[in-house]
Amino acid sequence: MTNKSGAAATRCIALSGGVGGAKLALGLSRILDPPSILVVANCGDDFDHLGLRICPDLDTLSYTLAGIANPETGWGIANDTGSFMDALSRLGGETWFHLGDKDLATHAERTWRLAAGESLSEVTAAITRRLGIETRIIPMSDDSVATVVETAAGPLAFQHYFVRERCAPAVTGFRFEGAASARVHPSLVVALAEPDLEAIVVCPSNPFISIDPMLAIPGIREALAGADAPVVAVSPVVAGKAIKGPTAKMMVELGIPVAAQSVAAHYAGFARGFVLDHADEGEAGAIRALGLEVLVTETVMRTLDDRVALAEAVMRFARVLT
Amino acid sequence: MTNKSGAAATRCIALSGGVGGAKLALGLSRILDPPSILVVANCGDDFDHLGLRICPDLDTLSYTLAGIANPETGWGIANDTGSFMDALSRLGGETWFHLGDKDLATHAERTWRLAAGESLSEVTAAITRRLGIETRIIPMSDDSVATVVETAAGPLAFQHYFVRERCAPAVTGFRFEGAASARVHPSLVVALAEPDLEAIVVCPSNPFISIDPMLAIPGIREALAGADAPVVAVSPVVAGKAIKGPTAKMMVELGIPVAAQSVAAHYAGFARGFVLDHADEGEAGAIRALGLEVLVTETVMRTLDDRVALAEAVMRFARVLT
Repeated sequence: MTNKSGAAATRCIALSGGVGGAKLALGLSRILDPPSILVVANCGDDFDHLGLRICPDLDTLSYTLAGIANPETGWGIANDTGSFMDALSRLGGETWFHLGDKDLATHAERTWRLAAGESLSEVTAAITRRLGIETRIIPMSDDSVATVVETAAGPLAFQHYFVRERCAPAVTGFRFEGAASARVHPSLVVALAEPDLEAIVVCPSNPFISIDPMLAIPGIREALAGADAPVVAVSPVVAGKAIKGPTAKMMVELGIPVAAQSVAAHYAGFARGFVLDHADEGEAGAIRALGLEVLVTETVMRTLDDRVALAEAVMRFARVLT
Repeated sequence: MTNKSGAAATRCIALSGGVGGAKLALGLSRILDPPSILVVANCGDDFDHLGLRICPDLDTLSYTLAGIANPETGWGIANDTGSFMDALSRLGGETWFHLGDKDLATHAERTWRLAAGESLSEVTAAITRRLGIETRIIPMSDDSVATVVETAAGPLAFQHYFVRERCAPAVTGFRFEGAASARVHPSLVVALAEPDLEAIVVCPSNPFISIDPMLAIPGIREALAGADAPVVAVSPVVAGKAIKGPTAKMMVELGIPVAAQSVAAHYAGFARGFVLDHADEGEAGAIRALGLEVLVTETVMRTLDDRVALAEAVMRFARVLT
């Protein structure tokens, strides 16, 4: 199905961070025509390192959808080599952020194309095309938005907090530098108004550092709330734990109960449906009390079948909500 | 032996391009106290590629003197891997210039340090120190000088001529962009006036593209001619052929006889001695007629012993000329 401009009609928008979101995006790409899916990647994690522009979530999404992601970590490229890091270490360079040799090609290609004047969208489109990805992956904005983690020890650039400090400092809040003047990606604006749109999926990503950077861009929150298609969020918290990453630790530090319902409350302003795990069925009532419809299902994605099954459940749920 | 400032007294200055020059520099480092040698690297080949600052001759010298050069090519790092290039090729990136994964660390580290405001000298000193090199290696200048090869098909940036076009276009001349306003490296100026200096060696490098870029920097030619220590040049042409690279092809295209004496004539304005191979003994008279002293010896360096023997012969010759 294509719209008047010849582009594929969008049936699903997925807002995603890295590994967890990419799993669900992969599931969606197996049950829908890939070009009908628009995956919007968090770019708050993007940073400059060793002169390279690194976009971790865009890359995790690309590698996952291209089928070349490292299955052990969820990020990076499978069977990558580490010669660059070995040599960099010998030179006394900064080695706290791991860059595989194959992965480096993405950063180098992106960096010089950006320096040559291409937008992040253009570079991303070129890279994903070359990787054979039919699902559309876009950055949340072509303007830079940088997540700063406020901690008891002072503010930290995101990757310094996340990788260098291994999330050790206690979090007191977040800032999204540049967000106030960033422009939402035009393809997201267009897609939100498309008549065939069935679901806007908030992937099971960290709400504070993967989804909030997008929501900090002026107009996105209102556009999500005002869309005809329902926003359906999938909980990244299961049984009081985060599947991956520092979500639960952050909630504790921020004084928020580590529970799916806390995530639901976070999205209640614009989400219509919330997907939580069987393990958290007891929270369904509290979430309904927030004004959200609830789907209880299996949300932990260990296998490709799990990813496909969750994608199917989410899309079915969204259709019921329409 | 150290001079008043505490730095090692310079006994030998070597002007060098890449592979051939690096072999002789390695030989010199085995017979002299390494810190007493100042190797001045051609930087006319340096260029920006994929956003990286690449300095081929500096790197070949560094890798050779660190004992990590690829013994098959003479350039690059031994046992390097090619994952970056494989991945870059998949992304449709420019793959005409090979960059090994370990080699990339040098370029990345240099590029970001230059961008952070360090000079090429500072970066080179840091890299060579980390590689355990005691011989002093400096760029010919901290200012950019870019060799442009004039060809029948128009001007070509050096690496486009050398690597991308594999030296195929017929050469009509050379330009050294930026040379007129470049400042010679201050350490070279200091070393040329040091009392312990015994030899200024022009390594067996390509005269047009490895040595001429240095000579194009204002003041160097005069400083070489005026130094107390003798300039001794080693022929890169043996038996009418270049040991490596396009020297002979260039001579043919420029209408210059492919002979050691052509190289001697090229350096006659400032050199006092010329080293040529036994194979070219018949040219000794013609070279003496240019006003140069001549040493006939074995100049082809196949083994480490060859490198050491040539270094010894060159230093002995220089001492006789003093």
